[in-house]
Amino acid sequence: MGMRSTARGLKAALTTFNCRYTGLRTYCARMETKGLLFRQLFEHESSTYSYLLADAESREAVLIDPVLETVDRDLKLIEELGLKLKVTANTHCHADHITGSGLLKQKVFGLKSAISVHSGASADILFSEGDSIKFGRHKLLVRETPGHTDGCVTFVLGDQSMAFTGDALLIRGCGRTDFQQGCSKKLYESIHQKIFSLPGNCLIYPAHDYKGQTVSTVDEEKKFNPRVTKSLEEFTKIMDNLNLPKPTKIDVAVPANLVCGLHEI
Amino acid sequence: MGMRSTARGLKAALTTFNCRYTGLRTYCARMETKGLLFRQLFEHESSTYSYLLADAESREAVLIDPVLETVDRDLKLIEELGLKLKVTANTHCHADHITGSGLLKQKVFGLKSAISVHSGASADILFSEGDSIKFGRHKLLVRETPGHTDGCVTFVLGDQSMAFTGDALLIRGCGRTDFQQGCSKKLYESIHQKIFSLPGNCLIYPAHDYKGQTVSTVDEEKKFNPRVTKSLEEFTKIMDNLNLPKPTKIDVAVPANLVCGLHEI
Repeated sequence: MGMRSTARGLKAALTTFNCRYTGLRTYCARMETKGLLFRQLFEHESSTYSYLLADAESREAVLIDPVLETVDRDLKLIEELGLKLKVTANTHCHADHITGSGLLKQKVFGLKSAISVHSGASADILFSEGDSIKFGRHKLLVRETPGHTDGCVTFVLGDQSMAFTGDALLIRGCGRTDFQQGCSKKLYESIHQKIFSLPGNCLIYPAHDYKGQTVSTVDEEKKFNPRVTKSLEEFTKIMDNLNLPKPTKIDVAVPANLVCGLHEI
Repeated sequence: MGMRSTARGLKAALTTFNCRYTGLRTYCARMETKGLLFRQLFEHESSTYSYLLADAESREAVLIDPVLETVDRDLKLIEELGLKLKVTANTHCHADHITGSGLLKQKVFGLKSAISVHSGASADILFSEGDSIKFGRHKLLVRETPGHTDGCVTFVLGDQSMAFTGDALLIRGCGRTDFQQGCSKKLYESIHQKIFSLPGNCLIYPAHDYKGQTVSTVDEEKKFNPRVTKSLEEFTKIMDNLNLPKPTKIDVAVPANLVCGLHEI
């Protein structure tokens, strides 16, 4: 315990020093998360990001938003890195691709799928506001961020250095609100109350990006997001007039995702 | 100086503690690079990664391997983040896409382009082994890693926590060696002598990935790269029998890249 206390003291002193030295708290975030293994993975067809997080010591891992088509790639990486995949955590019931959760469960003994209780989907773990998903010494905290769908959540790493925002907040954008219980007012409130209340330097990792961007921060989106920086009225007008085509896979993906991606198997 | 010395002592103590605590030096790397702003950016058509690095204090920035088609996206981000783009640094003379260096130079006053003296291309800065590209308190060190082309280099961040390997070492792969002065023996030696001699936890950021992978480490590639873990003889045999099609853009891209991407403008 003495060793740990001394180290905590050193850590506090160093953190203060770093922040003073750079003059910018924005860039201290990455240094806070010790012993975390992190990988961002991309699926080209649906432009979906999956995120692998693991505790470097216990090797317990969580995979956020796996995609059916990339299950083999992800499993190979997990095996190479010597990780034990415990949970697949879905930010919501996706309409544009089929989750890899079900197939992964068939391949990894003891793996549990997880999704919001408000999603209407079946899964081993049905979480809600304030719940946490633990992996070794780390955890993801659930913040409900409905609006794109009723069951959308944002996963926040325990130290608030990273947030996985699903389709609620995208980089310089946000999820559409014209199907699957979509509601622009709910989405606006979710983003402002549940995501923008995180530290400014918190890294934003979305479920998709279509322009080759990989990460943002709360501060950046507060300043530069062309939609959510507007008033609620203007935001609603923007969202009501997007006139997007229906996702090509919606009629297959949603029924499949309601049963963990295994509808067709 | 007193303040700095104390901080250095604290940093050394903390680093030791972190490594002991996690039991894995592999995951200490990210904590070493203070005050660095870092963004990985992707161009879909050629599956190219560009990398934006900046000093959080001075705001001086370097853009590694910019792509012509994404110049506007990159400039917008640079502007939003309040950065001063000083150098575009090319890992080599690309055959699959046109560099954004020339167009960026037209748009950013004082910007300098940089490429290896052995590339045969013209640029403001022609670097060679051991040269460094400075941005604020940070720097990229040049390690020559020929084999894909004669002018290929790997940029290594000053603290050796990140290496930008261009087309020399890819994630679980490597660049082809069947055109543009390609030589499998040279490439094998470059990877083993110049990249695998970096710390095992050094993050590998390649110029391309075609499978949605974003990053690897020296240790991982030493263990799991299916090509370069082989003997030189086996490696050469693999490289001689890839039978890849000629890059569709090579006849446009190479002449353009020899003059900073401005051949057609």
